[in-house]
Amino acid sequence: MGKNWNNRRFEGRSDDRGNRDRDNRNDNRDGRPFKKGPTKRERILEEMKQRMKTAYLSRDAVLVYIDGMIEDLEKALNLLFERLNEWYSIYFPELKIPDRTKYCKLVLAINKEDMKGTESRVKELMGDKASEIMKQLETSNGIDLLGKDIQKIQETAEKIMELERLKEEMEKYEEGVAKEVCPNLAEIGGPRIAAKLIAHVGGLQKLAKLPASTIQVLGAEKALFRHLKKHTKPPKHGIIFQHTSVHSAPRTVRGKIARTIATKLSLAAKIDTYGKRFLGKEMKEKMDEKIKEILARDAKAELKEQQKTEEQQKTE
Amino acid sequence: MGKNWNNRRFEGRSDDRGNRDRDNRNDNRDGRPFKKGPTKRERILEEMKQRMKTAYLSRDAVLVYIDGMIEDLEKALNLLFERLNEWYSIYFPELKIPDRTKYCKLVLAINKEDMKGTESRVKELMGDKASEIMKQLETSNGIDLLGKDIQKIQETAEKIMELERLKEEMEKYEEGVAKEVCPNLAEIGGPRIAAKLIAHVGGLQKLAKLPASTIQVLGAEKALFRHLKKHTKPPKHGIIFQHTSVHSAPRTVRGKIARTIATKLSLAAKIDTYGKRFLGKEMKEKMDEKIKEILARDAKAELKEQQKTEEQQKTE
Repeated sequence: MGKNWNNRRFEGRSDDRGNRDRDNRNDNRDGRPFKKGPTKRERILEEMKQRMKTAYLSRDAVLVYIDGMIEDLEKALNLLFERLNEWYSIYFPELKIPDRTKYCKLVLAINKEDMKGTESRVKELMGDKASEIMKQLETSNGIDLLGKDIQKIQETAEKIMELERLKEEMEKYEEGVAKEVCPNLAEIGGPRIAAKLIAHVGGLQKLAKLPASTIQVLGAEKALFRHLKKHTKPPKHGIIFQHTSVHSAPRTVRGKIARTIATKLSLAAKIDTYGKRFLGKEMKEKMDEKIKEILARDAKAELKEQQKTEEQQKTE
Repeated sequence: MGKNWNNRRFEGRSDDRGNRDRDNRNDNRDGRPFKKGPTKRERILEEMKQRMKTAYLSRDAVLVYIDGMIEDLEKALNLLFERLNEWYSIYFPELKIPDRTKYCKLVLAINKEDMKGTESRVKELMGDKASEIMKQLETSNGIDLLGKDIQKIQETAEKIMELERLKEEMEKYEEGVAKEVCPNLAEIGGPRIAAKLIAHVGGLQKLAKLPASTIQVLGAEKALFRHLKKHTKPPKHGIIFQHTSVHSAPRTVRGKIARTIATKLSLAAKIDTYGKRFLGKEMKEKMDEKIKEILARDAKAELKEQQKTEEQQKTE
C-alpha cells in the first residue's frame, strides 16, 4: 500500500531513489553541485501547502471567522459594559436600562451640574421616558464624582458605543456572506445559526452529509453522550436552540419544533452544497406553517386538560 | 445594649414609641393626618445612605474602579486581538509581532495588491525590520482574501488600537489618582499594585492596619490556607509578585525581595493614611539598595557553588 501511494505521487521512481532523497546529496544528476534540492519531504510539504490554500479559500471558512469575531465582540462588550455600569452606578445608581447603546448615550448626556442641558438632551434621546429619568436623577442617591472621573467614564462609554457599532456591522456582513455561501441554510436558520453549525462540524460540505437527527443535537454532545452511556433523557436541541421558534416556544413542544427545523436545515445544507438553487423561501413558509400547527395543537391539548381538571374540580 | 443604641440615636424616645412607629399610623402628634411619615426603618435607611455616601466619596474607592476597568480593558483587548490574529493569519501567517498596536498598524498598512505602497508604509512603521517583513510577505504562504474581508479585519484592527489607547489613558489616570490618594504606596509599589492592594482589602485605611507579613501574601490566600491546613509550603508572594523587582528576580531570592517590599509597602500605607507626608522617594531608594544587596549576595553564593562543583569535577 505504501509503495503504491509513493508510485501514484512520484511516478517512475523506485523506492531506492526515494531513500536517496532523504540523505543530503551534494550534487544532482548532471554532477552540478547545489546546496539543497527539494527533498521528498519538502515536496510533500509544498503539496500540502497548496492543498491547504484551496481548503482555506472556501467562503464557508470565512463565515466561521466572522462568527467567532462577533462572539468575542459580544464578550468584550459585556465585560466593559458591566464595569461601566458598576462605576457609573456610584454617580447615578437609579439608571437601569438594559440597552447598552442607550445607556452609554445617557451617560454622555447626563451632567448633574447642568440640569437644564441634561433635560433637553435626555428628552431628545428617550422621548416619553425622559421625565421619569429626570425625576430619578433629581432624587438620586448617587454621589457626585469629580469632573475628570466622569470624563473617563464617558470616554469608555464612547468606545463601547463604537464597539457596538462594529459588532452590528459584522453581523450585517455575516448575513451577506451567509447568503452567498449557503442561501437556503441562512434563510431557514438565520445567518448566525448557519455559521455556528458550519463552524461546529468544520465546513458546509460536512454539514450536508449529516442526517437531520444529528443536526438537531449538534452542540449538545455532552448531553447526547450522557444519554447514550447513562440512559438519561436525550437532548432535544443543541445550537438550534438559539432559533427564536425554539426558545420562544413552550417547553413541551420545543423538541418537536427543533426536529422540524433540523429536517429543513439538513435539506437546505444539501441544496446549498450540491444544488445551488434557492428554495429557502418556500421551505421556510412550509416550516413556519408546520410550527404553527404544532403550537396550535399544543394549545388545544392544554385547553382540554384545563377543562378536564375544571370538570373534575366541579364534580368533586 | 440594643436599648442603649436606640437611645443614642433617637434621644428621648421610649421603646414603646419605637414599636408604634412600625405600625401604620394615620396621624402625627398634632393630630394632622398624613399618608406616610418616616418610620424608624426608613430613618435608619436614610442614615445608612448618608454614611454610604461618605464611604464612597473617598478617592481610594475610585482607584479601585479604575483598576477594575483597566483589567477588563486588557481582557477585552486580549480576546479581540487573538481573534484578529487568527483571522489575519490566513492572509499573512508569517507576521508574528507580539506588540498589539504595531501588529494592528501593520494590518492597516499591508496590501498584497499594492506592494510598492505597502513597502513604503511598512518602512515608515518598522524601520530596520521592514525588509524582513517584506521578504516574509513576498514568500508568504497566505491566501488572498477578498477586499471586503480585509476591510472588516482592518476595521477591527482600528477599534483595537483605539481600545489600547483608552487603556493607556486609563493607566495614566490611575497613576495620577494613586499619587493623590497614596503617594508613598504608589511610589514604592507602582500605582497598579497600590490599587490592587487597596481593592483587595477594601480600602486604604484597612490596608494601613495590616502587618507587612500579611501584605506580602495578599492575593495568595488559597496557598496560605493550604499551608495552614495541610502544612504545604507557605506562599512567598501574592499581589506583590507583579512588582518587577520580584518577578524578574531569580526564584531563590523572590521570597526575600517580596518581604523587603512588603515591609516598605506596609509602612507607606500607614504614612499615607495617618501621616500625609511624602517619604516615598527615600524609602524607595533604601528598598532598591536592599534588593541590590540581596541580589548581589545571591549571585555571590551561586558563583561559589559553581566554583565548588567545578573543583569537584576537576578532582574527580
